Amino acid sequence: MPLFDLPLERLREYRPERDEPADFDDFWARTLAEAAALDLAPVFTPYEIPLPAVEVFDVSFAGWDGHRINGWFVVPKADGPVPCVVQYIGYSGGRGFPHDHLAWPAAGYAVLVVDTRGQGGANINAPGATADPHGGGSPQAPGMMTRGILAPEDYYYRRVFTDAVRAVDVAAAHPAVDGGRIVVSGGSQGGGIAQAVAALRGEVRAALVDVPFLTHFRRAVEITGRDPYQEIVRFLATQRGSADQVFRTLSYFDGLNFAARGRVPALYSVALMDDVCPPSTVFAAYNHWQGPKEIAVWPWNNHEGGGGFQKEEQFRYLHKLLSDR
Amino acid sequence: MPLFDLPLERLREYRPERDEPADFDDFWARTLAEAAALDLAPVFTPYEIPLPAVEVFDVSFAGWDGHRINGWFVVPKADGPVPCVVQYIGYSGGRGFPHDHLAWPAAGYAVLVVDTRGQGGANINAPGATADPHGGGSPQAPGMMTRGILAPEDYYYRRVFTDAVRAVDVAAAHPAVDGGRIVVSGGSQGGGIAQAVAALRGEVRAALVDVPFLTHFRRAVEITGRDPYQEIVRFLATQRGSADQVFRTLSYFDGLNFAARGRVPALYSVALMDDVCPPSTVFAAYNHWQGPKEIAVWPWNNHEGGGGFQKEEQFRYLHKLLSDR
Amino acid sequence: MPLFDLPLERLREYRPERDEPADFDDFWARTLAEAAALDLAPVFTPYEIPLPAVEVFDVSFAGWDGHRINGWFVVPKADGPVPCVVQYIGYSGGRGFPHDHLAWPAAGYAVLVVDTRGQGGANINAPGATADPHGGGSPQAPGMMTRGILAPEDYYYRRVFTDAVRAVDVAAAHPAVDGGRIVVSGGSQGGGIAQAVAALRGEVRAALVDVPFLTHFRRAVEITGRDPYQEIVRFLATQRGSADQVFRTLSYFDGLNFAARGRVPALYSVALMDDVCPPSTVFAAYNHWQGPKEIAVWPWNNHEGGGGFQKEEQFRYLHKLLSDR
Amino acid sequence: MPLFDLPLERLREYRPERDEPADFDDFWARTLAEAAALDLAPVFTPYEIPLPAVEVFDVSFAGWDGHRINGWFVVPKADGPVPCVVQYIGYSGGRGFPHDHLAWPAAGYAVLVVDTRGQGGANINAPGATADPHGGGSPQAPGMMTRGILAPEDYYYRRVFTDAVRAVDVAAAHPAVDGGRIVVSGGSQGGGIAQAVAALRGEVRAALVDVPFLTHFRRAVEITGRDPYQEIVRFLATQRGSADQVFRTLSYFDGLNFAARGRVPALYSVALMDDVCPPSTVFAAYNHWQGPKEIAVWPWNNHEGGGGFQKEEQFRYLHKLLSDR
Amino acid sequence: MPLFDLPLERLREYRPERDEPADFDDFWARTLAEAAALDLAPVFTPYEIPLPAVEVFDVSFAGWDGHRINGWFVVPKADGPVPCVVQYIGYSGGRGFPHDHLAWPAAGYAVLVVDTRGQGGANINAPGATADPHGGGSPQAPGMMTRGILAPEDYYYRRVFTDAVRAVDVAAAHPAVDGGRIVVSGGSQGGGIAQAVAALRGEVRAALVDVPFLTHFRRAVEITGRDPYQEIVRFLATQRGSADQVFRTLSYFDGLNFAARGRVPALYSVALMDDVCPPSTVFAAYNHWQGPKEIAVWPWNNHEGGGGFQKEEQFRYLHKLLSDR
Amino acid sequence: MPLFDLPLERLREYRPERDEPADFDDFWARTLAEAAALDLAPVFTPYEIPLPAVEVFDVSFAGWDGHRINGWFVVPKADGPVPCVVQYIGYSGGRGFPHDHLAWPAAGYAVLVVDTRGQGGANINAPGATADPHGGGSPQAPGMMTRGILAPEDYYYRRVFTDAVRAVDVAAAHPAVDGGRIVVSGGSQGGGIAQAVAALRGEVRAALVDVPFLTHFRRAVEITGRDPYQEIVRFLATQRGSADQVFRTLSYFDGLNFAARGRVPALYSVALMDDVCPPSTVFAAYNHWQGPKEIAVWPWNNHEGGGGFQKEEQFRYLHKLLSDR
Repeated sequence: MPLFDLPLERLREYRPERDEPADFDDFWARTLAEAAALDLAPVFTPYEIPLPAVEVFDVSFAGWDGHRINGWFVVPKADGPVPCVVQYIGYSGGRGFPHDHLAWPAAGYAVLVVDTRGQGGANINAPGATADPHGGGSPQAPGMMTRGILAPEDYYYRRVFTDAVRAVDVAAAHPAVDGGRIVVSGGSQGGGIAQAVAALRGEVRAALVDVPFLTHFRRAVEITGRDPYQEIVRFLATQRGSADQVFRTLSYFDGLNFAARGRVPALYSVALMDDVCPPSTVFAAYNHWQGPKEIAVWPWNNHEGGGGFQKEEQFRYLHKLLSDR
Repeated sequence: MPLFDLPLERLREYRPERDEPADFDDFWARTLAEAAALDLAPVFTPYEIPLPAVEVFDVSFAGWDGHRINGWFVVPKADGPVPCVVQYIGYSGGRGFPHDHLAWPAAGYAVLVVDTRGQGGANINAPGATADPHGGGSPQAPGMMTRGILAPEDYYYRRVFTDAVRAVDVAAAHPAVDGGRIVVSGGSQGGGIAQAVAALRGEVRAALVDVPFLTHFRRAVEITGRDPYQEIVRFLATQRGSADQVFRTLSYFDGLNFAARGRVPALYSVALMDDVCPPSTVFAAYNHWQGPKEIAVWPWNNHEGGGGFQKEEQFRYLHKLLSDR
Repeated sequence: MPLFDLPLERLREYRPERDEPADFDDFWARTLAEAAALDLAPVFTPYEIPLPAVEVFDVSFAGWDGHRINGWFVVPKADGPVPCVVQYIGYSGGRGFPHDHLAWPAAGYAVLVVDTRGQGGANINAPGATADPHGGGSPQAPGMMTRGILAPEDYYYRRVFTDAVRAVDVAAAHPAVDGGRIVVSGGSQGGGIAQAVAALRGEVRAALVDVPFLTHFRRAVEITGRDPYQEIVRFLATQRGSADQVFRTLSYFDGLNFAARGRVPALYSVALMDDVCPPSTVFAAYNHWQGPKEIAVWPWNNHEGGGGFQKEEQFRYLHKLLSDR
Repeated sequence: MPLFDLPLERLREYRPERDEPADFDDFWARTLAEAAALDLAPVFTPYEIPLPAVEVFDVSFAGWDGHRINGWFVVPKADGPVPCVVQYIGYSGGRGFPHDHLAWPAAGYAVLVVDTRGQGGANINAPGATADPHGGGSPQAPGMMTRGILAPEDYYYRRVFTDAVRAVDVAAAHPAVDGGRIVVSGGSQGGGIAQAVAALRGEVRAALVDVPFLTHFRRAVEITGRDPYQEIVRFLATQRGSADQVFRTLSYFDGLNFAARGRVPALYSVALMDDVCPPSTVFAAYNHWQGPKEIAVWPWNNHEGGGGFQKEEQFRYLHKLLSDR
Repeated sequence: MPLFDLPLERLREYRPERDEPADFDDFWARTLAEAAALDLAPVFTPYEIPLPAVEVFDVSFAGWDGHRINGWFVVPKADGPVPCVVQYIGYSGGRGFPHDHLAWPAAGYAVLVVDTRGQGGANINAPGATADPHGGGSPQAPGMMTRGILAPEDYYYRRVFTDAVRAVDVAAAHPAVDGGRIVVSGGSQGGGIAQAVAALRGEVRAALVDVPFLTHFRRAVEITGRDPYQEIVRFLATQRGSADQVFRTLSYFDGLNFAARGRVPALYSVALMDDVCPPSTVFAAYNHWQGPKEIAVWPWNNHEGGGGFQKEEQFRYLHKLLSDR
Repeated sequence: MPLFDLPLERLREYRPERDEPADFDDFWARTLAEAAALDLAPVFTPYEIPLPAVEVFDVSFAGWDGHRINGWFVVPKADGPVPCVVQYIGYSGGRGFPHDHLAWPAAGYAVLVVDTRGQGGANINAPGATADPHGGGSPQAPGMMTRGILAPEDYYYRRVFTDAVRAVDVAAAHPAVDGGRIVVSGGSQGGGIAQAVAALRGEVRAALVDVPFLTHFRRAVEITGRDPYQEIVRFLATQRGSADQVFRTLSYFDGLNFAARGRVPALYSVALMDDVCPPSTVFAAYNHWQGPKEIAVWPWNNHEGGGGFQKEEQFRYLHKLLSDR
């Protein structure tokens, strides 16, 4: 992959105008309030697997409109409450297997891995277990990007972000968790979700945002030819005349607008050869972020971003951050 | 594309055992009865387009669970009721444009083109206008093949086939249509739908079934590596342990079981180099069909089947059939 | 497909210098005069197909050097002469089937669909029926772009454009046609041909030019990596030293030079993500067009351009234009 | 490439029925007689290139219908007449450069490299210089395989084989050549041509036939999905109903029918993983060959066949054969 | 991926003849004895990473010819010696990161992850850290499959298997490990290595062999067109005449010959749509295995095999096996 | 391929800063001195092949560290010493066959074709015969670009360039060669090698450098997405943190630094659509070259560059140059 986006020195200063609807905060306040009116109804079912170092639970809770959202909750055997990482997942994937999520417990944290509704049906490495019972209000491109995209109320990610915010509540309410030390985390779609949740739930302690997707849609769809952003282009190419409506919807979900509301400590990462989530879209959000922030730049990588190296950065970052408090 | 399936002489005799659930007829009787309890509520809105030879209507009606299904109704200017072709659509497509559907009117028939719910969101040649508001009961592979595949009640095609049967009612009820001369028609997915509707609505006058999809699933997923049958394989590869449940669901929707109930005249077509809907899956259905039948064999074609040649066959076939009655 | 060409605001003003040979007009005058010396010898053979709303004729006429050119002529049953659309075809395709061309008749126009000589031999959706008995004067790249490209007299499109001009005469001479209301139309290659014919036969009433090919060759071969423009690049890469000769030939066929002679009303379309016929090549011609003109810009589309939406635009455009006269 | 055709032990015995038209010999006698009525008119133009070991001539002669066919004639500086290899070329290629053809001269032979008319326009390694002024009698698939395929008289390879036979005459007439020691040679298309010429000009001393194309068409188009055989399939898929006519034409050009008339010594080669010219089509011809014969089997190769190894085999084979006489 | 290999019922009985050199056991005895003469020289360097549940060591030891082999050793904090899983790695990958290997420690085992020399240089998810200082005795195809393939003494996998056997010694010698409960494990290339080590080090307690590579070479190279087996085919296609020598070399490394010497309990897995390591090659080894054995069959999967599901099987299998002893 | 690099007028002036290590000359002096301490030990074994115009020798000599390097030496039968072209080979290829190298002998030169160690194992057209017994000091990406890339002393091309310099000595020492008229030559990798050797062995008479690889690494890896430059990117993406070390190593091998030391006459070639060795990287070197120089610009070609046309240029160039002296 050659370099194709802005050079690094311009990326560091790239802070574009945001397209923010006047009722952005109202929209989310209303959405979350409606959700809050429903009982969270978390269920933690012990999962039988011979992994004595941890306790594993098959979790479900009531997400948007009460739909059941599934996840894994893995907690190290400890004497008292531990901090918890709420982990969101990259596009197409599901929660996978409990043994995929042993790093945070080994580091001393509980981890709550949250399914992205409807996803994980065809990802051999990360099966999911959660339906999206709401099919959307228009035809859609295959994939999830355009499900319900003609209205913010109906857009798929309204349900996903609501589920994700409530997952923080699920984590916070568990007796093994220290509710004051919840961290949201994810890469790609998971990074976009974590970024949004950190803005919507300012109480979280930190956000780990890797190569975030769902961010700076307008530029993304114009400069990359790859999925999943191209799902939107295929929809626009077919459902002509819908562009204004589509971009209006997306403005309620754009990571730029969440980043501008992010006030907690954040560790970002970006890859300069990433043509799935181009570096300018990531820096655009990072440069709008309001809280204390750091960004790891991976100059030779595509969308894999920092991979395991970034994970080690995160262990060290949280270790320092949570020890310091 | 080389030849890859059985040789033609064996195809002509290929009539495999069917896997039919005991309550197949009950399931469909119940499904259609539930639907019938809802008002059809058809709306025919005149569509402004300078095509003086025909009248064009933007149609909608209440499909499964009352969801609004859209279509085009194009009718030649005539002195009395005309026969009507109800046209179903190939996978991923939507109803397209009225001017795409002028052949049947030029031949003297009304045509009702029926959206396939949720499809047509990313097909630049055939945009659709109909949502599938039901999202299914499990995660899914991108596309529609596995939406709700873990239970027959919840499977996507239960809704689609119900919509399709009700479209016949919509056509029959229109004053410009001679309700005794309704023909169902389609290619690929549309052929699978037409095949099912002809079995479920024995009152239709004929079925035109081209290179049908949704037929002989078990063999199809084992011998072709192409989509959309592979959507099912990707789901099975991910959602392991679900195969029995998946194939049980599919047995309620398998074209083989509808073909065995088909008693109206049918004109099939099949292509011997078709690796999307392999010829053995088509002949399997054709050889089970109970009514008067003919099949056009296209030896050098892939999934395009007979294309425009087949369409001319259909004009002639219907012309003869409907004149004879 | 990402955006890759000039931004829209610059496209609107992009009007490059043209490379026009001094004897451009002479060349075409001479070519058409030679052709005019041959009897047009049109033959209209009724085609048996049960489409009672129209009359269908299998047409042939003497094109360049008297070679027989085939087409379909489809005319609505009407009381007097009707306007006629002469339709040219996209690269690789042939005239297809009569039932593919029922939209203009339904709109009240006759339509003459003209084969592009030698094409349509391997396009499953649009078979052709016309040979190009002249093989050209040099080796060629597979495809038609470089057949005879070393001399304007010998170039394939000299024959094609001549055939196309004469098709207008064929239409005009038919008793069912109102010769004062002939419109030329086409997309891609067909758009390039229509553009040329409108310049060469100023008597036509209008031109419908969609995402035209054969236009601004010099830029096209440098900015797109896709066929068919790349056929020329492969020839240049092989037949080195021929570039001056090749571009000299092309200057007699370049849509820019025809556009600069276009004086009839024209409706263009262009797609901003079109990497087959890049938008700057289309705007270059449009900005040179001399007559009354409009252009539909499709921002999210590739070479499919406006598709059926554009077709609806054309119905409305002609309806208005031809009613107004 | 995995093995995909018959196992070697069955290949060695594979000698299928041939489909031979009754007037096969008449057809070719008539064709060659008509050609013989035209003056061969060879022109040998010295080519300036500092290669002192050889003399290089840019050759042309009158091929089918008098069309000028080009080639290179490279002859070692020698005291008397030398044997000559007439070399035919693989599909898409042209005669290339004189310095590509120095191996036979270094081995003591003159070499006449014969352009395949119309080819070599887009093969960067082997440009050609010869037109096919005859464009054929029907539309064609891109490439040369279907040019004029609806009638034997009009088929492209009638012209090519005639050119190729006359090239032997050109070689034989040159004073530097010993006309009793002319060998025909080629790989792929060139092998198919050499095979035909050896049957049509029984006076040649030997044939070197590598992985021959144009042989056992019927089986080839059914078992391989690759070009150029697939050009025929695409034509059949489009020009439906033409199959009988197409296979009748091909029967006049099928290597099986030439092989059955081959009486001179022949050295064949075949590759067991060749999915361009499948091994069964090669063995089918080899097993029909009537003269003394040997075949080199390359078990792990695709269409590259024996490559340079086979060339060394040929040096040794001819060295022995021509020394022995 | 369609099914392409033998049907399951035949796979269960497929036990082909093996091609075993007479001195197979001598070769390996000599190879391992030479290696044993060198000091193992293990170095365990604590690795600083805030993962308090485990101890992490960056390991190196002297492999074949004393070359330094690197790995990770991760051990749960425990009161006494624990069993240890020695983990080998799939083709192209390296040891990755310590946090990738926390599942076995969470299950109560130490894990020693062993680099495959020379690999891991371009696998973004699993970087390696170990060179192969021996470059081989002939040119090679890119990749590792043909490095030194012309002689068993020189073949790459002689070094790899020797490293792998010695890794068991490294594990056994560590004070935290119960040397009587060492299990070898791996998938694909790692499965092939584990299979070999279990035969060569009969003292290991069990082998976990997933979709093993390096097994039944002769059939594999003939039925699959995918890498890495195709590296061998490309070599054979180029280095002609070397096939006997190559297959002789491979006979010393073929999993079939190791399986026939496998006497410890083994848990295999196989995927029926695996076209990288075709199921017949896996069953061939499994059916030759001499010890107690089980095999998990994944009917809908390609080379991902059982994925995380298989991992859970392994937790349960070892839990039972090691508790039972 | 569209144009993608700088426009020609800027290319002609593009002369970037070079990144040259202070001890560049020392490094190479030391390397070559160490090599010179080893006996060259050339062996010329006559090769039996019936090519009477030339003498063919299978050559080997002691390259870096005494490793045996193989090649072909082909010499025309002549009365006295002849000039000699030392030919280096493109990436992945080996020396091929003697009959591939008859052009220089036909032109009156001896030719020494030098294997590139380790390459030619999987190039069906150009098998090699030379091992690289040194495997490098770190894991590597498949291919040769990153073998030993972490240290200049250990880098693969240190061995290759040393072999290449010594090949000049081998040629010069042969009695059939006029040691004062040795020319180095090659395309792509071979061009990079020739460029380096011309700088390191200022005694050569000229350099023929076609579309050179291994030149201006820093820019190349950023602007092209194709192999082999991308081998380096994949390594950097995996072995993170190694970039400084990698680029330091490469600075000892970068064609820019050799070009700046080139003082002999040089004939370069460059292709403007070359996305393997982008034109700016070639012009960068050419513009740094110190000696008399010419460059052939191929505007429409990709990495095939000038092909046979360039070869003819070279015959003429050397003919003039060597006659003039």
